[in-house]
Amino acid sequence: MPRNDRLLRTARGESVDRPPVWLMRQAGRYMHEYQALRARHSFLELCRDPALACEISLQPLRAFDMDAAIIFSDILIPLEGMGIGFSLDHGGPKIHEPIRTGAQVSKVIVPVVRETCDYVYEAISLLSEALDGEVPLIGFGGAPFTLAAYSVEGSGSKNYENIKSMMYGEPEVLQALLEKLAETVARHLCEQVEAGAEIVQLFDTWAGELSPEDYEEFALPYQKRVLETVRELGVPSILYVKGGGGFLDIVAAAGADVISLDWRVDLAEARRQLGPDQVVQGNLDPCVLLGTADEIRDRTEAMIRSGGGQGHIVNLGHGILPMTPREHVGLFVETVQDQSNNE
Amino acid sequence: MPRNDRLLRTARGESVDRPPVWLMRQAGRYMHEYQALRARHSFLELCRDPALACEISLQPLRAFDMDAAIIFSDILIPLEGMGIGFSLDHGGPKIHEPIRTGAQVSKVIVPVVRETCDYVYEAISLLSEALDGEVPLIGFGGAPFTLAAYSVEGSGSKNYENIKSMMYGEPEVLQALLEKLAETVARHLCEQVEAGAEIVQLFDTWAGELSPEDYEEFALPYQKRVLETVRELGVPSILYVKGGGGFLDIVAAAGADVISLDWRVDLAEARRQLGPDQVVQGNLDPCVLLGTADEIRDRTEAMIRSGGGQGHIVNLGHGILPMTPREHVGLFVETVQDQSNNE
Repeated sequence: MPRNDRLLRTARGESVDRPPVWLMRQAGRYMHEYQALRARHSFLELCRDPALACEISLQPLRAFDMDAAIIFSDILIPLEGMGIGFSLDHGGPKIHEPIRTGAQVSKVIVPVVRETCDYVYEAISLLSEALDGEVPLIGFGGAPFTLAAYSVEGSGSKNYENIKSMMYGEPEVLQALLEKLAETVARHLCEQVEAGAEIVQLFDTWAGELSPEDYEEFALPYQKRVLETVRELGVPSILYVKGGGGFLDIVAAAGADVISLDWRVDLAEARRQLGPDQVVQGNLDPCVLLGTADEIRDRTEAMIRSGGGQGHIVNLGHGILPMTPREHVGLFVETVQDQSNNE
Repeated sequence: MPRNDRLLRTARGESVDRPPVWLMRQAGRYMHEYQALRARHSFLELCRDPALACEISLQPLRAFDMDAAIIFSDILIPLEGMGIGFSLDHGGPKIHEPIRTGAQVSKVIVPVVRETCDYVYEAISLLSEALDGEVPLIGFGGAPFTLAAYSVEGSGSKNYENIKSMMYGEPEVLQALLEKLAETVARHLCEQVEAGAEIVQLFDTWAGELSPEDYEEFALPYQKRVLETVRELGVPSILYVKGGGGFLDIVAAAGADVISLDWRVDLAEARRQLGPDQVVQGNLDPCVLLGTADEIRDRTEAMIRSGGGQGHIVNLGHGILPMTPREHVGLFVETVQDQSNNE
């Protein structure tokens, strides 16, 4: 156990003095230290250089009293080794040749990630050493459906019409792609644990665009496969789905230790639906951190009350926005720290 | 009552031989008849010419056995008379000067819509005459929050950071804008009823991006104000919110006769939550119409079963996509027609 064990204790259902706090994308563009590095390197250069990725992961810990570190990387990283080339620099992800046919899917590789993503695991080893047991280290990966959505759409999408055309037209082609992604992501997370990650988060950002029925067929089974592999290593897991507020019971069925919720559900209501034993994470609207100090404090306190004080990892409902003022992040973290369960 | 009274009977909670069916954006780009007109006129020219708007509204009725007509128009139409200029032609809506300050909001006009949107009501009169009592005529408007989102963001948005910055930074400025929008939209819908609309749909497309708490503060009260004005005219109303599956009870609190749901909730589960007396509309994923004939038939039948046969207006969960094959729309409509409650 790290000396600050709030996050791991909470994920395991144990009680803590106050809810732990960290932020999705806490290492990133809202920090000038990050911007300074980004001015000299492309995003992918930063991901691929273990020393730089470790340094960036440490930046938010130096600036704020975060209860966890998360490795600086990207969910798309394993795709390149699968033969799905992409770029990330201008206006979001761009897949060089979107996967639209069975012939393309059959050429997709399940790579030896230890070789194709070695720099991620090296960065985690460096980060683990630098943390020196102070706070837990979070590894992460993209869930199969979300990675398939990027691979098939070729970029972010408004309606997801390409992957859904495949889903409603040639479901077996999509399933073959999801199988390969599930195997690759499972291995990717295992290697991260091997390298020092103490908990992992699986991001199924776009699975909330599915109907409950489609989610059960095209997201859930592949999440389960990945999470089962992680569970065998004895490491707790967090599952993030953006949307999905209309079918939380199905989201929970994947068996993650922690369900990470977006802001479009009330935490107390979600906990009521999910039962008292389901640990949750989230869920402040990232835009709240663009508001006034009073608003940030009030909303954060209200969220913590709504979460109930135990079984709740405080976070945003999605990644922190690049234009977030740094001092607002400090205020958010301090507000959480001021909450003591003994008060 | 029109001769085909399935839609109005259903909206009023009365029983019907089979669920009525129409499609959001049924008059539009997926039809070659529309494309032919669009090749010669801009989108706004089509909206502003009563004869053309009427003609476009009739096109889907000639091609398919729809149970309702909806006037061809756009939710942004009333903004111009409010002093919020916009264009619609290239890549979605663009507000010329996004509303970001209290000074700008104070200059926003609550117009005499009978003058500024006269062409809409004229188109409805023409359409009403052309329908000759065969099927009901649906009028529509954008809900205040959604219109505010476009006005403040200046276009579609991923994170809605501008309107939410206003919401969390200067809520009174946003409220002043919402007041003006509510008054304008209420008048706009009343004029449509006056001109011949027999039911109206209020689109709060982006309100589902809000937390339940924010929805209650910045969407719900303004929906209520608009819907109350419509109710006084004795005309039933439909409220569409994209998202919001995590807080259906709050969506229902606006008091619309019909709640129009997106595909991310199961209809049976929604009806369980909303109670047997709440009429619902929806909710097939528009992308299903990009799939195979079998898939379209199976999914449509499953949706109708899930809806329970009464108190359900069959529709998509969002507007029909422009690339939808026309014959798939026919198949969808026929599948609904084949469902008899007497079977």
